[in-house]
Amino acid sequence: MEWYKIFTPELKELIESKNLKGLSLLLKDIHPADIADIIRTLEPTERVIALRVLKKTKIAEVFSLLDPEEEEELLGYFTERRAKVILLEMNPDDRTQLLDELPASLVKKLLKLFPLEEREETNILLNYPPESAGRIMTTEYVDLGTEITVSDALEHIRETGPDRETIYTCYAINKNRKLCGVVSLKDIILAKPDQKISDIMSGKVYRVHTTDDQEEAAKAIQKYDFLSLPVVDSEDRLVGIITVDDILDIMEEEATEDFHKMAAIQLSEERYFRAGYFKQLSGRVGWLFVLVLASTISGKILQKYSVALSSIIALAYFIPMLMGAGGNIGSQSSTLVIRALATGELTLKQWWKVLVREACAGFVIGAVLGTTAFFIAIFLLHNTLLGVTVGISVATVVTVGNLAGTATPLIFSYLRLDPAIVSAPLITTIIDVTGIIIYFEIARRILNIPT
Amino acid sequence: MEWYKIFTPELKELIESKNLKGLSLLLKDIHPADIADIIRTLEPTERVIALRVLKKTKIAEVFSLLDPEEEEELLGYFTERRAKVILLEMNPDDRTQLLDELPASLVKKLLKLFPLEEREETNILLNYPPESAGRIMTTEYVDLGTEITVSDALEHIRETGPDRETIYTCYAINKNRKLCGVVSLKDIILAKPDQKISDIMSGKVYRVHTTDDQEEAAKAIQKYDFLSLPVVDSEDRLVGIITVDDILDIMEEEATEDFHKMAAIQLSEERYFRAGYFKQLSGRVGWLFVLVLASTISGKILQKYSVALSSIIALAYFIPMLMGAGGNIGSQSSTLVIRALATGELTLKQWWKVLVREACAGFVIGAVLGTTAFFIAIFLLHNTLLGVTVGISVATVVTVGNLAGTATPLIFSYLRLDPAIVSAPLITTIIDVTGIIIYFEIARRILNIPT
Repeated sequence: MEWYKIFTPELKELIESKNLKGLSLLLKDIHPADIADIIRTLEPTERVIALRVLKKTKIAEVFSLLDPEEEEELLGYFTERRAKVILLEMNPDDRTQLLDELPASLVKKLLKLFPLEEREETNILLNYPPESAGRIMTTEYVDLGTEITVSDALEHIRETGPDRETIYTCYAINKNRKLCGVVSLKDIILAKPDQKISDIMSGKVYRVHTTDDQEEAAKAIQKYDFLSLPVVDSEDRLVGIITVDDILDIMEEEATEDFHKMAAIQLSEERYFRAGYFKQLSGRVGWLFVLVLASTISGKILQKYSVALSSIIALAYFIPMLMGAGGNIGSQSSTLVIRALATGELTLKQWWKVLVREACAGFVIGAVLGTTAFFIAIFLLHNTLLGVTVGISVATVVTVGNLAGTATPLIFSYLRLDPAIVSAPLITTIIDVTGIIIYFEIARRILNIPT
Repeated sequence: MEWYKIFTPELKELIESKNLKGLSLLLKDIHPADIADIIRTLEPTERVIALRVLKKTKIAEVFSLLDPEEEEELLGYFTERRAKVILLEMNPDDRTQLLDELPASLVKKLLKLFPLEEREETNILLNYPPESAGRIMTTEYVDLGTEITVSDALEHIRETGPDRETIYTCYAINKNRKLCGVVSLKDIILAKPDQKISDIMSGKVYRVHTTDDQEEAAKAIQKYDFLSLPVVDSEDRLVGIITVDDILDIMEEEATEDFHKMAAIQLSEERYFRAGYFKQLSGRVGWLFVLVLASTISGKILQKYSVALSSIIALAYFIPMLMGAGGNIGSQSSTLVIRALATGELTLKQWWKVLVREACAGFVIGAVLGTTAFFIAIFLLHNTLLGVTVGISVATVVTVGNLAGTATPLIFSYLRLDPAIVSAPLITTIIDVTGIIIYFEIARRILNIPT
């Protein structure tokens, strides 16, 4: 995949010898995404030289692919005028993302340099809430009047097309800029030149509002296989579009966010190295601290059973097995349910079906693991009664743990909380406490020990 | 989102009264993805009636969106001739997916009904390995000769376009069908009518081979923002394309697969209800069984420390806390590393950087949690020495657990194993065993107890 690496020695030599012409020739045919990768391997001063030989449109493209800190650092090497030119060449949505993460003082300074129109565009995008459709849309779409002919539309696309993010889906608007139809370039190409747009467009247009969550836009694009999705304001006027390539990145980010939440990591930034070291640290330590505090309860309960424990010390040997089995099955069922809720396969209405399904599954798996635990206990201690105790306890804890792992995300979802924060660690802690109580209550009865 | 549900009563009434004309009018403007959702809420016989009024191209589209069992059941209601017509209308990639999951005997019967050309096409797709680029590609792309003019190309697109999966990216091939360029419809529209395709095409075409992993195609489409990606055979001849809408589904499937693996669930099917009940059960019980067996080791080690344990029974109270803290931090660091490896942000070359970063993080978090554990122990038992023992043990286990969670996926990745199978449960079991040893060795020294 990383074929471009073979150029690196040549590139470094060209930079060192300040052979700008050779450098320009070398980089001309390389894709911006690859140039961004190459840039990352260079020293800061080398980066500036490599970027300088590119066309400004290409610099802007490379810029949108770099991380904000890298962008900020590089911007510092350019003059204000040149920085302005690069930023103006970027797509409004990429520019918003960059400005979003730069220090406020720098943003203010840079915005002042922009022509009024661009400034307004960027300001509009910046004013929508984070993770909203408005924040990720681009204002560079093709709109067509409903009453123009196909040949006029083609002429209009030829004129405005080069600047637009996509020309493959065009949106029909009426005089008040209200969205009233969608027509693909395919339909336009296949239509007769004198047909009107209103004749070939589809009047049913799926749309999202500027304040809708970006995930809703992602789900619609995925479900209907759209290449782009129109974004309208509260009065149904077309204000932007969201394109499928942005959705690919958003889906990856949302999945990563869920992975982190489920491992009890609270991070606003999804990327490993991009997240600041101390931010990442504090996002991790918070939940862990709570979970250590919560484990005081297990300690307290074990203390309550200390008489039983000291009369049969062997009971302690199986605490790790019991807690492990309960925690593992809980993390399995919660993962299955959380993921099915996230992909939209499972809806809350099916809660009853899922609970029955998982109750049965927990019972079967509990029987298998309980039997295994019985034999392990016999193998370790040659004591049938203790074996029975451990076996029944593991079976019960597994059944209960599976149900807890299923029910908790469903309850969270019902309460309109994000089910992904029902992290495996949280479930594990819940099951730990109930598991220990179940274990000692069963032991007390079977082994006839005092409490 | 589920606006179409308002039609359901009307729809059921139309079906019951066999008002096919009204039914046809009602369904005409509804998107195939929504019709598929509606179909799922109907009884089997109602489904057939609802489908019958649709145009065959639309039936084929709805079909591609249903689950294989649903498709198989519905196919049974159609005559063989009609089943053939529907299958022929489906895109080759969707058809392959359906045939892939139908019983072999039915596939054979259906394939016999196909015209030779279609049969060959489907057979070709079926012969590539599962999850390969060949399996998910479609053969319905637009290819253009390098020497034809832009106006001829537009004419060709107008003629063949209606059948093609996309016309927005066209591929230029030479006489031997070797892929030699790519040209977007945008470039064609913006070019002068008498320019040659070879003048406006880009000669650098990113391509995948039929046997490449589908994930490689997904990564390329995501990185370069392609709408489609050409697939070539071993002799670099163009044989198909992969489109961005399929990649959206693949990315979701791959993420779900990783979620499941990390919760120690082995499933070939990513969807919750679609996976057979017993298949899902056996995919879950395997790992759990291994992990219960592995916890025998913890039991055995605790048995070894039984003298220490019975002399200070309070040591047992903190086993859940210790195991919880170690397991949780291990699942945090393994999730961070596994996800960063999966998204390509982290490569193996950076292993040293990651290890140092996580060693420091583990040490800091260990200090915080160790101090917390110290105070909890004092609060529970009013015994400073025991508090010191628990505090130091938690701090050590957290530091070690964080490193184990970081190193294990890196090692798996180095051995070319999928790092996602380093599930949190596996890490937890490893940390359990080392944690208990660390705990009792520290206790033995600080509390001066026999072993």
